[in-house]
This record gives sequence, structure tokens and C-alpha cells, in this order.
Amino acid sequence: MKSIQLSELNQHYGEEVVVSGFVDNIRNLQWVQFLILRDDTGRVQITIEKSDDNNQSMVELVNSLTLESTVKITGILNENPKVKLNGMEIIPSVIEVTSKSDLELPFSYKDLTGVNLDTRLDYRFIDLRSERNSLIFKIQSSLVQYMREYLYQHDFMEIHTPKLIGAASESGSDVFEVKYFDRLAYLAQSPQFYKQMAMASGFNRIFEVGPVFRAENSNTSRHATEYTCFDVEFSYIDSYYDVMNLESEMLTYALEKVNQIYGEKIKEMYGEELVVPSLPFPVMKLSDVYQELESRYGYKVDDSEKDDLTTEAERLCYQLAKDKFQHEFLFVTHYPASKRAFYHMRDDDGVLQGYDLLWRGVEITTGAQREHRYEEIRKNAKEKGLEKDVEFYLEFFKYGCPPHGGFGLGIDRLTMLLLGISSIKEAQFLFRGPNRIEP
Amino acid sequence: MKSIQLSELNQHYGEEVVVSGFVDNIRNLQWVQFLILRDDTGRVQITIEKSDDNNQSMVELVNSLTLESTVKITGILNENPKVKLNGMEIIPSVIEVTSKSDLELPFSYKDLTGVNLDTRLDYRFIDLRSERNSLIFKIQSSLVQYMREYLYQHDFMEIHTPKLIGAASESGSDVFEVKYFDRLAYLAQSPQFYKQMAMASGFNRIFEVGPVFRAENSNTSRHATEYTCFDVEFSYIDSYYDVMNLESEMLTYALEKVNQIYGEKIKEMYGEELVVPSLPFPVMKLSDVYQELESRYGYKVDDSEKDDLTTEAERLCYQLAKDKFQHEFLFVTHYPASKRAFYHMRDDDGVLQGYDLLWRGVEITTGAQREHRYEEIRKNAKEKGLEKDVEFYLEFFKYGCPPHGGFGLGIDRLTMLLLGISSIKEAQFLFRGPNRIEP
Repeated sequence: MKSIQLSELNQHYGEEVVVSGFVDNIRNLQWVQFLILRDDTGRVQITIEKSDDNNQSMVELVNSLTLESTVKITGILNENPKVKLNGMEIIPSVIEVTSKSDLELPFSYKDLTGVNLDTRLDYRFIDLRSERNSLIFKIQSSLVQYMREYLYQHDFMEIHTPKLIGAASESGSDVFEVKYFDRLAYLAQSPQFYKQMAMASGFNRIFEVGPVFRAENSNTSRHATEYTCFDVEFSYIDSYYDVMNLESEMLTYALEKVNQIYGEKIKEMYGEELVVPSLPFPVMKLSDVYQELESRYGYKVDDSEKDDLTTEAERLCYQLAKDKFQHEFLFVTHYPASKRAFYHMRDDDGVLQGYDLLWRGVEITTGAQREHRYEEIRKNAKEKGLEKDVEFYLEFFKYGCPPHGGFGLGIDRLTMLLLGISSIKEAQFLFRGPNRIEP
Repeated sequence: MKSIQLSELNQHYGEEVVVSGFVDNIRNLQWVQFLILRDDTGRVQITIEKSDDNNQSMVELVNSLTLESTVKITGILNENPKVKLNGMEIIPSVIEVTSKSDLELPFSYKDLTGVNLDTRLDYRFIDLRSERNSLIFKIQSSLVQYMREYLYQHDFMEIHTPKLIGAASESGSDVFEVKYFDRLAYLAQSPQFYKQMAMASGFNRIFEVGPVFRAENSNTSRHATEYTCFDVEFSYIDSYYDVMNLESEMLTYALEKVNQIYGEKIKEMYGEELVVPSLPFPVMKLSDVYQELESRYGYKVDDSEKDDLTTEAERLCYQLAKDKFQHEFLFVTHYPASKRAFYHMRDDDGVLQGYDLLWRGVEITTGAQREHRYEEIRKNAKEKGLEKDVEFYLEFFKYGCPPHGGFGLGIDRLTMLLLGISSIKEAQFLFRGPNRIEP
């Protein structure tokens, strides 16, 4: 007989069931043993009467059983309102130990207060046994599932672009080198160039979910050397407003779904209210943002810093978005072209046709209409001194290429913001940073 | 007004529409110009009467227009049974050139006969403009979409494991080295260890779709240094039969969906019949396979080779599966443990609890129940001389770990077999091999 997930037990009252999981707790009383079994869908009480002669071998087994061992149990499932845990219990006939945990845990995952984050990451497989921590990844999976679902509904296809690339292209610095047979290769910092290649290939609408690599030696709560990016690119747009619209609709769709499934759980577990955003998301020019941050909150910065959002300005944008628009998201546009990637389009006045999207005071996306005209993109690359490095990329635009745009969205950061988690280290299944590449 | 995809035109007869795409063809006759517009959903005829005075600037524009340039066209869509191409035409009022293709294409993507595959890969963005080639990736996207859908329906969640790893672990050879700040890192050859970490973390059912890296210096039609792997792992199994069942059900579900959407197109474009498999898939022991290959087809190999399937034996298994089971798939079991990874479980008699899955005579999967008991997995690693390298991995099993199993499925190879494509180079969006890392 197959083990069933504990969340499905309530369909099997009065039946013989087989359940499997970790030994979450044992209470050994004078007349009875209670074993609490746990899988990642729930917990259930197993009740063993000591007085029953047939139970003697089970009683002995449970006496020697250690917490966090795994067991497989066959028994009758009874509805029992007296049992606090879900009002049910299993009266077992067979208990089989499938793996033993004989050592003391390096820390108690049930109360992580005061446990050093590095220790938790060293023993991530213990850390993730806490309901709070494993739930992060169920929610992340769900979020990505529904972002994809929105895109499938809009005729997008998923592609898989190579992470091993021949030229250290996008920025030159911050790129990892790989020994590739008798030459060097590099790890892609983003799928940007290949998303655009798909457009030059005539693919209308594509997305990709995959790892990106940044050799940045910075140790902040928001940076990682490897993370998962949700990248979108599509053709035949009229302006970067088409890109902003698609992104805001996709996020709204996914957040609405996640809210239906996990909204209450998120509030209970992380204390965060999931506010499904309204459409359209508010949009402000960069210069207007600084003006309002000063007039509303007295936040002043030197003009020399106003070509980008400072971290503090980003943070204040959460307040601004709420106060001015009753919204958690804010698109910021009209960044100076000099500060942005050469492949972002500028209009005839030199105004950048791109945006950043902030959520709860943190930048989650850079998006743009891309420059698709060969002469223009070549000129832009030359201005940044990148003409040689991106030679292979410039080729894509020589034989006709539709107007197109897109964006990238780091799903770890998105998860972090969704749940109000303070560090990206907790929002990655396994964090990677300059000083952490294990386990 | 927004451009609509050409596949959606038939909902807009008699309306003014905006369409965008590549200039696929131009026929310039005495009284009329026909421009064929193409996007990746279809083609449409644009008809310009030269005698109409209002059309003079458009006529001139079309005179100077080059194939593969991109245009945006506003006009009235008319149903017209006389037009061979879908019985419709657009009478344009505005034609705007959005990008120019002034150069001769390096080759004609419309007839790839005789075009060297390397040239095609050098100009992959031209190569993919052919309907045959772009369709490969629509079908691949759809296949992966429905494999995921099956797993979501069965309560699986998607995880994202790091590709940068601290130890060259799984086999030691064939692994790419990365310069990681002041030390070395390696590119993951598979997410195997981290999928299993998820099991030790108490996640019941997970999957991952991501790149894997193999530093193999082999140039065959089936190998790549980077490819996309669809990996599945789940807990609380009773044997590797649970793994085989899940995999065969997932593949059957996805192939059925793909057949509904693309079955006819696949036959028309690639000459392949998509046969939705029946359940369960047939299973044979390795030794029985060799016995039947000899008795049925006179295929003999030396006993020394019988610890694995030779390439020729794999190929013949297609015939065997068809002749013996009227099936295209074949599970092969009972490989000698000495030939398989240390993390595959063996039973008390030393019989390996794993399998290979062959489709159409090619191995597409290795799957197994994994060894989840600390003492056993440590012993197996030691036997292979890997104990030191996999120290971090052995930790996962010290504190209880449920019985579990899983498999990995290369989606490029799967696509190749589905469509009867002869080389994996064509089934990857951008192929990566020892001699190819560009574009």
C-alpha cells in the first residue's frame, strides 16, 4: 500500500492507511505513547496503548526511537475530537523505521531565535525542516508557476539560453571565468543578449527562468553571486509602456493566485499582508521622485546623485507610493541614458525608454524597450567602449529585427519582499555569496 | 493601436488592423504590389494597387523595401477567397519600416539543403527564422509546460539549486572549473545532490528545470557541454517502481497534450508520427535484453560488454520494444551496481534499484531509488573512492532522511527524439560543445 500525504488523511477516516514522515515528537506516558509524525503537508498523532499485548514490540521500538528519524506506519485512522492535532489519530499495527537520526541536531530548527544565520546555512537541510522556512519555497514555486501561467495564456514560449558564453560581454567586470578546454569561457550575467537573439530570430514572445551569475564581491542582504532570474522579452511593441503593462499584469495575476492559496498563511507565518496590486501601477519620472521626496519627507541629496535612486531614496519610495498612489509598486522612468545599459533605447531627445520597478521600496526589475536598429545599437555600444566585446551581439541586428522590449525579475528578491524576509540568504534554497559556496 | 498576431487576424475581417512582422516576400507586378508579411504565428498578404493615387508613397516605399526588413502596417483586413494565402488580404493605409535588412543573408533559411550546420549555428538567429526550426522550440516549450503541469497536479514544487558548487563532486572528471574570487568553484554536472538535500530537508516532492554542465571533450550528435535537464525527486517511495511509474505517467500526460496541439504539424513538418504511449511502459532486465537481442536479431556482444547497453544495443531496443511490446519506450533494469553512481540504492543481494529509460532506441533517463541510509551511502561512496569529495553530501543523511528516488531527463535530447531530428545541435536554442561557445 502506498503512503499518502498527511494533508489527505481527512478523506480516509475509518480506513487502514499508510503514512510516512519524520518523527516530530514523542510523548511517552505511563499508559500510552503519542508519536507525532510530520511530512511537509502536515502532522498527525499516532496513539499506542501500552496495555495492549499486541503492541509490545511497537512500544519497545518507540522507546528507542529518536526524533527526526523517519518512519512508515500502517494503522487505522480514527476521527477523535479529543485529539488537539486536527481531531484525528492513527492506531498503528506496524511501525517501520526507514532511517535513523542518532545525533543531536546542530540546532533546533523549531526555534531559530539566536541561531547564527551562517550556522543555519551550513546545515541548510536542517534549517529547511522548519515550517516557516520550507513554506518560503512552496510560495516561491507557486509565484513562478502563476507568472508562467499568465505568459502561456498570452502566447509566450519558454526558451533555455546558454550560461556558458564566449565573451565577457555585458559589462566586462563582475563576470566569472570558466576554464573551457583550451580557452576561457564566462558565465552569463543575464540572458539579455540571447533573449534579444530570439527576437532577431523572429520569435514573438519568449521568457526564461534560470540562473544568472554575478562576480560581485559585495556582502549585502540583497546580493548573491548566483540567483534565479525570470526574464521576459517580446516583439512588436510600440513603447516601453507595453513592457510596463505586461509586467504589471503578470505580477498582479500571480500575486492574486498566490494570495488565494497562501494569503492567510503568509499573514500568520510572516506577519505580512499580501496586497494584490491594482492596475495600472503608478509611474513617476526620476526627477519628480526626488522632488516629491524632498517636499514630502525632507529628503535631500546632492544633484550629482540624482542620476539614479540612492538606496535611501528607494526605501522612501515605498512611503511615496503609498501616500501618493495608495500602491506598493512604483515605476520610475526617465533615467539618464549615461547610467543605463547601451542596449536600452533612447528617443530622439536622448530620453531613455526604460524603467525600474520598485516594490516596497526595493528595485525588483529593470525593463526597457531595446534598441533594435543596427546603426543605433552599434553607436550606443561604441559610446560605452563595448563595440569589440559585443561584436557577436551586434550581428543580430544586421538582418532586420523587430522593435522589442522586456525585463528581468529576480525571483529570490521577489520572494524576500513578498514575505518580508530581511535577507536574500533565506529566500534562496541555497545561498551563494563571495564567502559561501557550500554546501 | 496595438499590433495583433497574424494568427488572430481571422477574428477581425472588415476591420482596420495593425500588423507587424518581417517582409517575407515581395511581388512587384505591373498594376499591383503583393507584400507577404510574416510573424511567428503566420503570414498574410498585403495588397497595394499601384493605380491608386493615394498609394504612391507606399508604392515607392515597397519598391525600395528589402526582404527580412521589419514593418508595421495599418490597413483594412478583407476576406478574399481568391487569395491563396489564408483567403485574406490587407489593404494598407500606412506602412512603416521599423528595421532594415540591407545585406544579403549568409544563407537562405527557407531552403537549408546543403547549408553547412556550422554556418547555420554561426548565424543561428537567421537559421531560426525557418518555420521548421522555430517550431522545434515551441514544441519544446509546450512539452516542458505539460510535464510541469502534471507535477503541479501531483503536489510537486519547483526548486532552483545552485550551479556554482564548492567541490568537484559527482564524478571528479568532466567538470568545469570556475575562478571564484580567491578560490576555485565548479559547475554542477547535475542537481542530484541538491535534489536529495531537499528530501533530507523534508520536502516531499520537488522538481527543477535548469542547465547542467559536462566538460566532456566528445563531439557526437547526442552530447553537449551544457544542456537543460528536467529533474524530479520525491520521498516516501517503496521502490524504484514508484519512480518509473511517475516518470511514465508524466511523459504520457505531456505527450498527449503535445499531440493534441502539435501532432499533425509534427507529422507534416518533420515526418514523425507522435505515438502517445500506453501505460504501463514495458520493463526488461539488462541480461534479458541481451538475450532477446541475440535470439531475435542475432546481435551478439562479448560478455565483458554486457554490464551496460552498447550504443548498438540501445538502437536495437527500439525494434525490440516495438516487436515484443508494441511500444516505443523501454525501461531497462538490473544494471550491475559497479557501473552506476554510488548514490543509487542496491538491495540486500546487491541488485541496483535503478533503471534506464530508452525511447526510440536512445537512453533518455537514468532513474533510481536513492540510498538514503547514512551508513550505506557512506560505504558506497568509499567503495568508489569518493568519500572525501562528497563529505558535504554525506552530511545530509546523518539526521534522518526519508526513502526517496527520482530521475533526470535532458529536454534537448527528448525534443530531438520527439521530432526525429538527427543532432542535438538543432534541438538546442544555442548549442554548446567543446568547439562551440558562440554566438
